[in-house]
Amino acid sequence: MRTWIDLNSDMGESFGNFVLGRPEEVMKRISHANIACGFHAGDPTWMRRTVEWAKHYGVTVGAHPGFPDLMGFGRRLMNITTQEATNYVVYQTGALKAFCEMSGVKLQAAKPHGAFYSWSILSEENARAVLEGFQAVDPSLVLYLPALPSYPLIATAEKMGFRVVKEFYPGLSYNDEGAITVKRSYGTESVAEIVDLVLRFALDGKTTTTTGKVIDVEGDSVCVHGDVVNAPGVLDGLHAALRREGIEVRSAIYAASEEVLPLRRRASA
Amino acid sequence: MRTWIDLNSDMGESFGNFVLGRPEEVMKRISHANIACGFHAGDPTWMRRTVEWAKHYGVTVGAHPGFPDLMGFGRRLMNITTQEATNYVVYQTGALKAFCEMSGVKLQAAKPHGAFYSWSILSEENARAVLEGFQAVDPSLVLYLPALPSYPLIATAEKMGFRVVKEFYPGLSYNDEGAITVKRSYGTESVAEIVDLVLRFALDGKTTTTTGKVIDVEGDSVCVHGDVVNAPGVLDGLHAALRREGIEVRSAIYAASEEVLPLRRRASA
Amino acid sequence: MRTWIDLNSDMGESFGNFVLGRPEEVMKRISHANIACGFHAGDPTWMRRTVEWAKHYGVTVGAHPGFPDLMGFGRRLMNITTQEATNYVVYQTGALKAFCEMSGVKLQAAKPHGAFYSWSILSEENARAVLEGFQAVDPSLVLYLPALPSYPLIATAEKMGFRVVKEFYPGLSYNDEGAITVKRSYGTESVAEIVDLVLRFALDGKTTTTTGKVIDVEGDSVCVHGDVVNAPGVLDGLHAALRREGIEVRSAIYAASEEVLPLRRRASA
Amino acid sequence: MRTWIDLNSDMGESFGNFVLGRPEEVMKRISHANIACGFHAGDPTWMRRTVEWAKHYGVTVGAHPGFPDLMGFGRRLMNITTQEATNYVVYQTGALKAFCEMSGVKLQAAKPHGAFYSWSILSEENARAVLEGFQAVDPSLVLYLPALPSYPLIATAEKMGFRVVKEFYPGLSYNDEGAITVKRSYGTESVAEIVDLVLRFALDGKTTTTTGKVIDVEGDSVCVHGDVVNAPGVLDGLHAALRREGIEVRSAIYAASEEVLPLRRRASA
Repeated sequence: MRTWIDLNSDMGESFGNFVLGRPEEVMKRISHANIACGFHAGDPTWMRRTVEWAKHYGVTVGAHPGFPDLMGFGRRLMNITTQEATNYVVYQTGALKAFCEMSGVKLQAAKPHGAFYSWSILSEENARAVLEGFQAVDPSLVLYLPALPSYPLIATAEKMGFRVVKEFYPGLSYNDEGAITVKRSYGTESVAEIVDLVLRFALDGKTTTTTGKVIDVEGDSVCVHGDVVNAPGVLDGLHAALRREGIEVRSAIYAASEEVLPLRRRASA
Repeated sequence: MRTWIDLNSDMGESFGNFVLGRPEEVMKRISHANIACGFHAGDPTWMRRTVEWAKHYGVTVGAHPGFPDLMGFGRRLMNITTQEATNYVVYQTGALKAFCEMSGVKLQAAKPHGAFYSWSILSEENARAVLEGFQAVDPSLVLYLPALPSYPLIATAEKMGFRVVKEFYPGLSYNDEGAITVKRSYGTESVAEIVDLVLRFALDGKTTTTTGKVIDVEGDSVCVHGDVVNAPGVLDGLHAALRREGIEVRSAIYAASEEVLPLRRRASA
Repeated sequence: MRTWIDLNSDMGESFGNFVLGRPEEVMKRISHANIACGFHAGDPTWMRRTVEWAKHYGVTVGAHPGFPDLMGFGRRLMNITTQEATNYVVYQTGALKAFCEMSGVKLQAAKPHGAFYSWSILSEENARAVLEGFQAVDPSLVLYLPALPSYPLIATAEKMGFRVVKEFYPGLSYNDEGAITVKRSYGTESVAEIVDLVLRFALDGKTTTTTGKVIDVEGDSVCVHGDVVNAPGVLDGLHAALRREGIEVRSAIYAASEEVLPLRRRASA
Repeated sequence: MRTWIDLNSDMGESFGNFVLGRPEEVMKRISHANIACGFHAGDPTWMRRTVEWAKHYGVTVGAHPGFPDLMGFGRRLMNITTQEATNYVVYQTGALKAFCEMSGVKLQAAKPHGAFYSWSILSEENARAVLEGFQAVDPSLVLYLPALPSYPLIATAEKMGFRVVKEFYPGLSYNDEGAITVKRSYGTESVAEIVDLVLRFALDGKTTTTTGKVIDVEGDSVCVHGDVVNAPGVLDGLHAALRREGIEVRSAIYAASEEVLPLRRRASA
């Protein structure tokens, strides 16, 4: 029976004067942060601030590199080469790692963002290109990846020796093939709906596809949208529901290790 | 009597489809490279390629961060905050460091680019902001800085524990106060003029200002423009002249250390 | 006695996925919009949407070009050349004009943004460079400019034949020399304070400087921050107060002309 | 029998400090210029300079908008929406038009660049989105398009009332389906090979595909690479060969109109 679960969000997505959502309020309520690295979102000042918040709130940190497409928020597929993919990962992850070291935080994980993720699952060659970028920066990075069996990314990551944390996405729609797409309701989310989906995943390892089929979803982490208007409310709802079920919120990074830091989970305190 | 001198150039300044000068030909002929990091010039693919060339030709590598102003090539003063300055240094230097580690090259030095350098000499506070960025990435980085006594940057760097390599700029004009400005002849340089200026610096530690005054210029490195059309020819001229004087071309990084790698100096072979 | 006043805001400052403030709610409540043109803020899709909102709500449109510094929101002085200034104005204003023509809206005004405005008041040469850009696109553009007597911009604009609408900035601090700076309270504004300042300006043509001195402020337009959290509330407060004083809110563009379109002022209806 | 032909090149592709090829030397030798508009290449200063060169050398001007991907030079397919496509066209074409008006040059033509062209031929919906952007700026713009029968772009353009100038690409490879791809030899081109291909097209309306099949290629214009190292030499070769055949070089824009300006064709003088 599950005794803990990881709540992760995409963070550090503000840029200059543009603040996305209520980032510190989200950071207080998650256990793992995927931090944007300046290509699809984020800038040096937001990266530093976000890393410092992660440290302050005991949240583990992963790099979240994306396409060089700020205008499209990295959500538009770009036909880059595999060499470019590797280089974009090294650049962005290296930059974030420097902020982590500056703040005395360990960069422990990684996850490609948006359409860059979509690009990375198009072929094993693409998957390998992205993963070789992460490997060049640190082969001990833990990959956070959607728990979708049908794509080569997880298998390739494991073949290359990466530890993978599989994620469930309550804010996305699953089709029968396990593909995921952004829901039409994106913007404000129903707390009750998200709580139901997460509990079903956490307790039974199941979710329902767009056609009504029930499928298995493995994983130890739930990726919660950090930029929807009511993200803090959704997270508070999740904390309360999980506490009632006796499920602790903690980073999956520490789950397999001895070195479990106590998280300062203010929202659930 | 001087037995060696360092020739450094700003490198990695190409961007995407835009190739600046003949970078590999320049890399073959220098001993130290200041590599652009993607803000004022450079992109992940050029950074990786440039680091690999540096490795191949035995050239030591420094980070060369600049303002986020690709359109102005980082040559226009921007009124950024000290926090932004530190963060821009950490971001860019961290990104370059990742490519160095990927290629098995040690990132050993740093130097702010163009107007970012100009910004860093405006006040001790500015100097400190830039230097703290480098320090956060690696306090053992060697600073390459113009040998100008009148600005607080060198003093602040030394106070903060950095080793400084002082540079002479044969391609720039010195005024009586030691300020330097780009010459009007920039674009194609006179090999004979550059050779004369470098020999005078290397042998006597002197140069002549725009008013005709002779001033002392300390330093172990000469910063040669890598993007002028005839950069390889200028460098060949320098190698030949320095060889005649019995002065070896080698990176100043190694000068003070035991670990002197033999440089593959093809141009001077 | 004043029978009308113009309320203008900087609009179109969202970028891609980054929405700044509640733009449509602001557009409903103003009479003139200064629309960002893609350099310091704005992108083609937001420009088009903003122009269409302006049309829908009967708001006159001006171009609001800025420095090419999205990361700094155009608020950091950049040491560009006068040629660059002219060219940046032509590029941005031409782009916005195309969206206006596409939507059947006339581009009628212009105003440099943030630090680009600051650059344009540094010298008559700078002022002229910016104004020549606007002139090249359309010499009949009306310039919206802060009513500050001490800078050469307004005088140069009038010398060049531009009509100028002078603005009062209730959200900024005025010093005794008439220089203006962003208030520390920026973010959320006090409705009562802004209403008081605007009434004092509208009824008496006065404001109080940071030292407590009372100065004259001429002008027919009030520039209201469109990106503070409570901008719609501030504007509602202004509409109510102005209505009580019998002062109509209408664009200054139409003030001097016969062709006064009835504005659809929903907020004040 | 053909008495004239149009030579067009993609121009204005420099950016800030990055000069692509020898643009003025190319401008002297062509009859029509497709000018980049700041997204995939070009900046306001290069756009203005390029328009002024076009005016000086009697070259007709078209807008050459591309994807917002400077790092990839607009050569990487991006999965943008049709609304974005229209808006990107309006923005870029409007900006260029402003420089044309500033210089007293008429913007007469248009052509999507690189992967943006590839995107526009993926479906009639895409084609229409791009064309509606051009139409919004000026429905009398002449479309320069590769003479490829198999894609909906030309048909859609003609259905929408645009005049189309069909182009032959001697620097690209044609496959049996009429698809074109960049040759491996790109960078430096064989003058003799290009001359042969252009004469064959100009005299017989034929070319040979990669499988050796001879196909018909219609058209009045030849798109010559302006950024290959020896572009001026290639163009000189073409001028000499065409002169020998009694074929005049002139812009196709003027071919159907009364208003034929004498071109200052220095290279062929």
